[in-house]
Amino acid sequence: MIQNNLLNDLCIKWACMQHEMQQMDADGCLLTINVNLYYTTGRVFNGYFYLPSEGEPYFFVKRPNGFEGNQVFYIRKPEQMPELFTEIGLKLPKKLLLEADELTYSEYVRIQSIFKPKETPNATALMRKLRRIKTPFEIEQFRISAQQHAKTYAEIPSCFRMGMTDVQLQIEIERLMRLNGSLGMFRAFGANMDLFMGSLLAGDNAEEPSPFDYALGGNGIDTSCPLGANGTVLKKGFSIMVDMAGNYTPYMTDMTRVYSVGKLTDLAYRAHQASLTIQNEIENIARPGTSCAELYNLALQITEAEGLGQYFMGTKQQAKFIGHGVGLQINELPVLTPRSKELLETNMIFALEPKYVIPGVGAVGIENSFLVTENGLEKITQFEEEIIEF
Amino acid sequence: MIQNNLLNDLCIKWACMQHEMQQMDADGCLLTINVNLYYTTGRVFNGYFYLPSEGEPYFFVKRPNGFEGNQVFYIRKPEQMPELFTEIGLKLPKKLLLEADELTYSEYVRIQSIFKPKETPNATALMRKLRRIKTPFEIEQFRISAQQHAKTYAEIPSCFRMGMTDVQLQIEIERLMRLNGSLGMFRAFGANMDLFMGSLLAGDNAEEPSPFDYALGGNGIDTSCPLGANGTVLKKGFSIMVDMAGNYTPYMTDMTRVYSVGKLTDLAYRAHQASLTIQNEIENIARPGTSCAELYNLALQITEAEGLGQYFMGTKQQAKFIGHGVGLQINELPVLTPRSKELLETNMIFALEPKYVIPGVGAVGIENSFLVTENGLEKITQFEEEIIEF
Repeated sequence: MIQNNLLNDLCIKWACMQHEMQQMDADGCLLTINVNLYYTTGRVFNGYFYLPSEGEPYFFVKRPNGFEGNQVFYIRKPEQMPELFTEIGLKLPKKLLLEADELTYSEYVRIQSIFKPKETPNATALMRKLRRIKTPFEIEQFRISAQQHAKTYAEIPSCFRMGMTDVQLQIEIERLMRLNGSLGMFRAFGANMDLFMGSLLAGDNAEEPSPFDYALGGNGIDTSCPLGANGTVLKKGFSIMVDMAGNYTPYMTDMTRVYSVGKLTDLAYRAHQASLTIQNEIENIARPGTSCAELYNLALQITEAEGLGQYFMGTKQQAKFIGHGVGLQINELPVLTPRSKELLETNMIFALEPKYVIPGVGAVGIENSFLVTENGLEKITQFEEEIIEF
Repeated sequence: MIQNNLLNDLCIKWACMQHEMQQMDADGCLLTINVNLYYTTGRVFNGYFYLPSEGEPYFFVKRPNGFEGNQVFYIRKPEQMPELFTEIGLKLPKKLLLEADELTYSEYVRIQSIFKPKETPNATALMRKLRRIKTPFEIEQFRISAQQHAKTYAEIPSCFRMGMTDVQLQIEIERLMRLNGSLGMFRAFGANMDLFMGSLLAGDNAEEPSPFDYALGGNGIDTSCPLGANGTVLKKGFSIMVDMAGNYTPYMTDMTRVYSVGKLTDLAYRAHQASLTIQNEIENIARPGTSCAELYNLALQITEAEGLGQYFMGTKQQAKFIGHGVGLQINELPVLTPRSKELLETNMIFALEPKYVIPGVGAVGIENSFLVTENGLEKITQFEEEIIEF
């Protein structure tokens, strides 16, 4: 069932999982959530991936029909697994990792009652920890996403027409994205992180608080989707912050650029420069071992030295982070917060997004996705960083 | 916090919930999943909605800032709720409904440890049962979605260019949808029901099995999104089945129409007519009290009488349902399966989608959303039902 060009990548991931399982004396890990299935098998299917702490993985598939491979077993329901384990000669796991932060309560309890394990450590925590460190194959996927992400952003000025709304502009950008290969699907961790194709904020809508854990808010066009563009007419003097998804491969880049209708206020340009300064200073100091909290606090210091604290990461509601890991989900680990205990590690990829919201103008600032290398940060998302005037 | 034009609708829903809670001797229901929050409060927020079995509801809000209303309490974490309950004079629930099929295991256990209820009946089951029966306000929302859905489908022929792929056509349809008011967001029940803006199937891609519980499959453009259009070039003799989302309001209509490049085979037209016959026969007999299984079996009988069994609802993999409730999620109750025990009830809205897949051609058939009235079915989605030739 595995395509050859992926197999090497999957073997790396299985080896890392088994190393961790052996450290914690676990017998196996059972995964069924889409992102974890994709991560460990290279595809999404309806069923279960089981990796024992030693040996080959097993695939228990409900759908689709037609899977090929040596260790593929078709099941109608998970209750069939223990008997199959016995037939295969796999020992029934006593310490079984399950996706506690992703499976529903009902699903989790069902699996517990099927395997009756003595302990069920948290597979979500393990997978999120492992997924922080990107493999060579994954890093290549990010580079493809970054290239298409930049191509789309370069084409945005061709979509602008005076008098259009933020939603109308976003629709044209969505079309560009899709024509440039966007998969459409946008995955986030957590049930309350709804978002469609990314966020575009203009004018005072940038101040509006959102229920979600994104950097900025916006009212959206309906109370069922309270985020992003809300129908604001794009007027002279407004900034347009484009933070649309980099979902050109399953591994998403995150990149924000600011466009403007005519000139903005001096304060807006000054705040934008402060974002670039923060980015530069962080690029100067960040390397494997650097504390994520230190990066947040550096951003805050620069902000306060510039007297921009009241605009930092929002006005009416201010986000308490300036960056986050990216990957199959847009909000992976680490998170760059004031009290994070995480340190940067080689082959992490994270988005850095120091932003300001200027009342009467909109949002300004920068976001790029960075690869942590042994020598420091490598900027994956390459594109003009000054405010682009329509 | 509630807009006036929604309040009447919400009061109806709260009354129904309280009636059910009183029947089961429950003390209250705590909801935090987006669709349930929207259903009961008219908006999505980060926090909890608590409805005791008698009296007014309470809103415990983490984000966004700025909620207004009498019974709104800001919290940082759910652990603060019991103390607030005591301050308010609300009794701590001993029998507390929780969203067992939607909350993650970790969240569920956390809420259990906070309230220490003796029993936690399944709020997911309750809400899915209540959400089957639509309120007057909801029915109006469906009518708006249906109108925009039909408007988009009428504009589809203007997008077609000879030589384009299914994905390219879908991208232009997505743009039309958004310009006609599509919210973008597409909500389904179940973690493994990923879908972006709907499905478009042409040629033999319509035969490809998918992991998901949709009527038909398709390979998609990436193994991380294995459904729908896959880059098939739209050639003469191919059918193009358009089953794009009706997400023009939070209440989604479901409607499928078939387009073709030139003429199709006689078999394809014959199968399409069989779908229309099934729809007509079901319209003739369905009314409150009709069994959902009976409707499925009627469809199967007509199919077998026509000798079309091998093409019914797929070829390599055949879906075992011909319809499903629609609403805030695309897969609500009831489901029209061979062994369903559900009966139609007044003010249900369901999609009926008898479809066939013809090798070498693609998918044909029909899908409309129907309101169950006291006198029988009312077709909400009105649009040309014959195959539309490009």
